[in-house]
Amino acid sequence: MKLADIFFPFRADMNKIERELDRAIDTAEPVLQKTASHLLKAGGKRIRPVFVLLGGKFGAYDIERLKYVAVPLELIHMASLVHDDVIDDAELRRGKPTVKAKWDNKIAMYTGDYIFARALMIAAELTDPRIHRILSRAIVEMSIGEIEQIRDFNNWDQGLRHYLRRIRRKTALLIAVSCQLGAIATGAPDSAVRSLYLYGYNVGMAFQITDDILDFTGDEKTLGKPAGSDLRQGNITLPALYMHKQSTHADEFHRLAEDPAQIERVIEFVRNGEGLAFTQRLAERYLDRALAALDGLPAGRDRDALGKIARFIGERKF
Amino acid sequence: MKLADIFFPFRADMNKIERELDRAIDTAEPVLQKTASHLLKAGGKRIRPVFVLLGGKFGAYDIERLKYVAVPLELIHMASLVHDDVIDDAELRRGKPTVKAKWDNKIAMYTGDYIFARALMIAAELTDPRIHRILSRAIVEMSIGEIEQIRDFNNWDQGLRHYLRRIRRKTALLIAVSCQLGAIATGAPDSAVRSLYLYGYNVGMAFQITDDILDFTGDEKTLGKPAGSDLRQGNITLPALYMHKQSTHADEFHRLAEDPAQIERVIEFVRNGEGLAFTQRLAERYLDRALAALDGLPAGRDRDALGKIARFIGERKF
Repeated sequence: MKLADIFFPFRADMNKIERELDRAIDTAEPVLQKTASHLLKAGGKRIRPVFVLLGGKFGAYDIERLKYVAVPLELIHMASLVHDDVIDDAELRRGKPTVKAKWDNKIAMYTGDYIFARALMIAAELTDPRIHRILSRAIVEMSIGEIEQIRDFNNWDQGLRHYLRRIRRKTALLIAVSCQLGAIATGAPDSAVRSLYLYGYNVGMAFQITDDILDFTGDEKTLGKPAGSDLRQGNITLPALYMHKQSTHADEFHRLAEDPAQIERVIEFVRNGEGLAFTQRLAERYLDRALAALDGLPAGRDRDALGKIARFIGERKF
Repeated sequence: MKLADIFFPFRADMNKIERELDRAIDTAEPVLQKTASHLLKAGGKRIRPVFVLLGGKFGAYDIERLKYVAVPLELIHMASLVHDDVIDDAELRRGKPTVKAKWDNKIAMYTGDYIFARALMIAAELTDPRIHRILSRAIVEMSIGEIEQIRDFNNWDQGLRHYLRRIRRKTALLIAVSCQLGAIATGAPDSAVRSLYLYGYNVGMAFQITDDILDFTGDEKTLGKPAGSDLRQGNITLPALYMHKQSTHADEFHRLAEDPAQIERVIEFVRNGEGLAFTQRLAERYLDRALAALDGLPAGRDRDALGKIARFIGERKF
């Protein structure tokens, strides 16, 4: 089963979302037009819109309503990536230069602000106050998560709980909200809204944990950036954190990790260590929870699709 | 007539807004708590909340509703200042170190994001869809204005229209929206909403133009930053632009303006030139329009207060 097969029934609607994304960032301001369309063309899996549309299947599915949720969620995600790249000093994302690399940090800051503002403007077309409340709460959590990420750079004292809280804010919450808002926008019953939130949250956790594994196991070609990028930037993820905790020479470990001349050795050490298997088991535990959450939804093709996406995320190699 | 006299009837409600601002930024995240409360304590005139409350007088005045507009508008303004200070490399604002100076650019970026997100969360308590639509449109315009400001740094080719468009986005729009949303939140009649928007827009233009005059005529003590700060940062405002257009040695003029060793001479030249009087007349024209817009509102104490604020803005020295 490929992801494309799951997406097949949504092909026309996803094309529509793509066109709406294009329209959303359209502006007469030449710099913003260039930076925003650079971002849009750099691609991305568009998983947030996919989750919105799937969530919408549990209510009265209507792409003309769902687009007002799907487009803002993808834009909010994009805006957060532009600001993340400033924080991480990232030169590449998905194999393409980041906005901060191709232009500069200031332009990246305002490109993020602009895309974010456009997201809000589109979401404002929907009148259900729950949507605004849920969306704004998620954005607050994300912004706290981003500052936590700065604070936790090169912090080897953090524990598993710390790591989980950070990726919850960084990734899981917005995916949970994508599933949830798709359901709310189409008037799905409350029980479905709750199950979809729970499903999305657990899938999102698994997704980010898998990302953190792939950052070590992938190669530059599939990742679009050098392997071990997180650690190079001082962003300590679970595979490295586990190895550090297990190490009998913890001080030595993080001294090497902060030395650019030694970082390759540390990355190799993590690539060959047991941290990856431990992290993989954790991802699987979240996937199991995601699948269990699906029990709260009516059986059928749409629920099956959610199950398949969850399993795909567990197995993905990019 | 002092501003304090106009504000007197709102004293209790403005104290409430101040407490709500404090609560709004409260977070367990220690860095954000410090940066956000540093910003809040740095003060500010809180004119956006004042305009919200005054706008609310033309409907069924209710501070418990108005706070959901007044607090977000002040927070959005604060968030935009933090990002502005990054762009302008500003060390001081209101006599206190900026977030980017006291911490760094990255922390300033996320502090802005966080405060902005909190603003949205509070505004989400109101269910009138017009509020979200108006607010999000204003935010889009502001973000475009900010990138225009970067683009226009050291650009002496810009004309008056260019300058006006920039300050419209930078300042006038959010003040217009403050007056307008105060009225909408309290169910004021449409004609009052329109008049208040028009009043706010023109007051906002006059306010920013006056700011741009004071940046040259003020001293470091009243400004909280060195005189001529705008020009030092490459931000070309009307007094300097006018002198440049009138100059028979325009090339020489902007060469000197971009030379840190010569900038004091250029600032002196603007301080003693006719650009200030020209700019002052323009501010007065906007104030006249603001006062004319008040004709669309029912006569009485609240309309008088709006007139007094407009006149105060025309005469202010800080």
